[in-house]
Amino acid sequence: MLDFKGLTYPKGFRVATGFANIKTQGPDMLILLADEPVDTCAVFTTNRWKASSVLLAQDSLKKTNNRVQAILVNSGNANAATGKEGAEDTLELISHLAAQLKIDPSLVLMNSTGVIGQRLPIDNMKNEINAMVKHFSTNDTQSPQAILTTDLCTKAYSSSFMCDSSEKDPVKISAIAKGSGMIHPKMATMLSYITTDIFMDFDLLKKIFKECIDTSFHCISVDGDQSTNDSVILMSNPNTENSKILDISDKRASVFKENLANIMKTLAKDIVYDGEGATKFITVKVTGASNYTDAHNVAMTIAKSSLVKTAMFGSDPNWGRIIAAAGSTDVFFDPAKTSLYLQGELVLKNNQSIKNNPKLDKLMQEKNINILLDLGLETTSPCEAECWTCDLSYNYVKINAEYRT
Amino acid sequence: MLDFKGLTYPKGFRVATGFANIKTQGPDMLILLADEPVDTCAVFTTNRWKASSVLLAQDSLKKTNNRVQAILVNSGNANAATGKEGAEDTLELISHLAAQLKIDPSLVLMNSTGVIGQRLPIDNMKNEINAMVKHFSTNDTQSPQAILTTDLCTKAYSSSFMCDSSEKDPVKISAIAKGSGMIHPKMATMLSYITTDIFMDFDLLKKIFKECIDTSFHCISVDGDQSTNDSVILMSNPNTENSKILDISDKRASVFKENLANIMKTLAKDIVYDGEGATKFITVKVTGASNYTDAHNVAMTIAKSSLVKTAMFGSDPNWGRIIAAAGSTDVFFDPAKTSLYLQGELVLKNNQSIKNNPKLDKLMQEKNINILLDLGLETTSPCEAECWTCDLSYNYVKINAEYRT
Repeated sequence: MLDFKGLTYPKGFRVATGFANIKTQGPDMLILLADEPVDTCAVFTTNRWKASSVLLAQDSLKKTNNRVQAILVNSGNANAATGKEGAEDTLELISHLAAQLKIDPSLVLMNSTGVIGQRLPIDNMKNEINAMVKHFSTNDTQSPQAILTTDLCTKAYSSSFMCDSSEKDPVKISAIAKGSGMIHPKMATMLSYITTDIFMDFDLLKKIFKECIDTSFHCISVDGDQSTNDSVILMSNPNTENSKILDISDKRASVFKENLANIMKTLAKDIVYDGEGATKFITVKVTGASNYTDAHNVAMTIAKSSLVKTAMFGSDPNWGRIIAAAGSTDVFFDPAKTSLYLQGELVLKNNQSIKNNPKLDKLMQEKNINILLDLGLETTSPCEAECWTCDLSYNYVKINAEYRT
Repeated sequence: MLDFKGLTYPKGFRVATGFANIKTQGPDMLILLADEPVDTCAVFTTNRWKASSVLLAQDSLKKTNNRVQAILVNSGNANAATGKEGAEDTLELISHLAAQLKIDPSLVLMNSTGVIGQRLPIDNMKNEINAMVKHFSTNDTQSPQAILTTDLCTKAYSSSFMCDSSEKDPVKISAIAKGSGMIHPKMATMLSYITTDIFMDFDLLKKIFKECIDTSFHCISVDGDQSTNDSVILMSNPNTENSKILDISDKRASVFKENLANIMKTLAKDIVYDGEGATKFITVKVTGASNYTDAHNVAMTIAKSSLVKTAMFGSDPNWGRIIAAAGSTDVFFDPAKTSLYLQGELVLKNNQSIKNNPKLDKLMQEKNINILLDLGLETTSPCEAECWTCDLSYNYVKINAEYRT
């Protein structure tokens, strides 16, 4: 269902990539441009130490009432903790691009990812912008690469689907992401840009976008650390003869949401597969919680545990670490009512361990590991969550310790 | 000031150690006995998945109004997640010891540490208890060893000091601890037992004990994981002609607190020095916060960060990771007002990085690393905190992944 070869942007969007020598190799600049100001939803890092570009983007979205036209991205340098001068650099680059595009600077958002505490090479970047604006394209293979830092793989999908068989036009979604590799000198960061041509009420679009983030990018952890620059941005430019979707009761809204969630979850999982030093992909599912928030909290705590992650690297069915992590949260449950499954095999029921299972050692050798903890609470509301993480390997330490700044 | 050779328990306390073959080597059982029921303060793990012995100890302390007489400890098996049968084992061992000592079972607390999900060898243990109760002593070298799991070093101190020059008797404190090594199969756990002969109002003693825990054992992290069995217990048996200390305004209370805090901080730091795979001891100090809780929260978040800990292992002055960790908490501060020092060298001021400091690379090679983050808030209340952690090394991964269950 997802199309992986190259990336076709929805009609009304164009991209250009460039090389400003911020990274030692590959394209390191991207401009994503809409034909006119379009509905734009964004979620940014909650880190108090936000990069100036993030603060500025939040201001611009307020000023334009969430209708912007271009996003400028650079990889290789986060332009974070660079003080007043760093903020001025961001502004200068935005103004420069806006002048080239002949649009208001508040219609341009900028994102940066990479090393913290270093100034951007803005003269290089301005020259490159001059070249890039002459080469916009709607079909490209370089945009997913231009936002990478030390990721091993690009992460990009586009999708086309009918929201209703009676409609005239299919809906298109196209999305790229980076993370959680590091950059020189090693930050775990994520960026994602999603474009679509859905014709939808903005408040509804925003609601759906946030819900999809909660069950995708908010469900992954590589090392539990949070960056200063994380941004996920969705732009919608309806070029369609379909009628506008006004509220959630319109079944087309659900179809769109399902497709958007599918793409975002796949990108999120790709980030984990590409996690620093990862040798295993671990799915942590928690069921039988009082509510989704509790289930998510427990699942993420297990997913972040260094002891769980090292055990998984060693293919060790050491489930004591899983319950110790689960119990360390504030979430209410009764250990006496829980069940724990490793690779589908029951290892703990009613707080009592199941006798040694000879199959388990072999199952733990697999690359994909499934942890399922049922908290055993009976509720009517949604009460389960799934999170994804990778193991903690020698290579994680190597990547993060041995390659010097 | 602290006396390290062997351990002299305060008058009125006796210990016995035993070998029940729960561990493959070394003593694995300890009985700590007071001449009569004595004031006992305890802090237990907040993990929801508490071992049955922890739950039972909490009940006994309630029942006896915090006056117990004996503590039974075993290492090598946590007796956690062993269901109803495991709880019955704990009860049986407690009753057995109580019968031998001819005291009420509610006067006996039990603690276990080690592998999760396995039954205790209680027949062995009962036999060993029978032997142990014949060999109590007040001066011993084995008690610190009997509670160890895979710790490399014992952790034990005793101290004797005058609370006031006009007093007749010195006050004695004697304390042992274990952690954060692992056990077969690898749990990061801590236990500590402290005895003293201070003659003090119980509520005041409890208050001082909790405050000392907050600035010692609550300030350390090896890997951010929390165990099902953590317990810190203080017993006080005044054998003294000194007069009773009634409230905090009595200057003897401050002297006692200072000495107790000193011992507990030293034990806490020892646990970090002995942390799994540790090659560096890292002190994280946060100043200029609105209050102690905020300062502690930020310091602990930095101390727990895998990215910070791997950078320190690599002797990499990668301070971007430190501020990213600091910013990921809910604590209010303004990045523009902060200063960050690594090994005493300023690297960031007012959110602006300081030019490369050639001295820093060499300073980062040292075994002791100091991180000081000043949040720059002006307050009148106590506004700083210090936490201790170790680096994250290849050996941490090896210890936790390669040695199979």
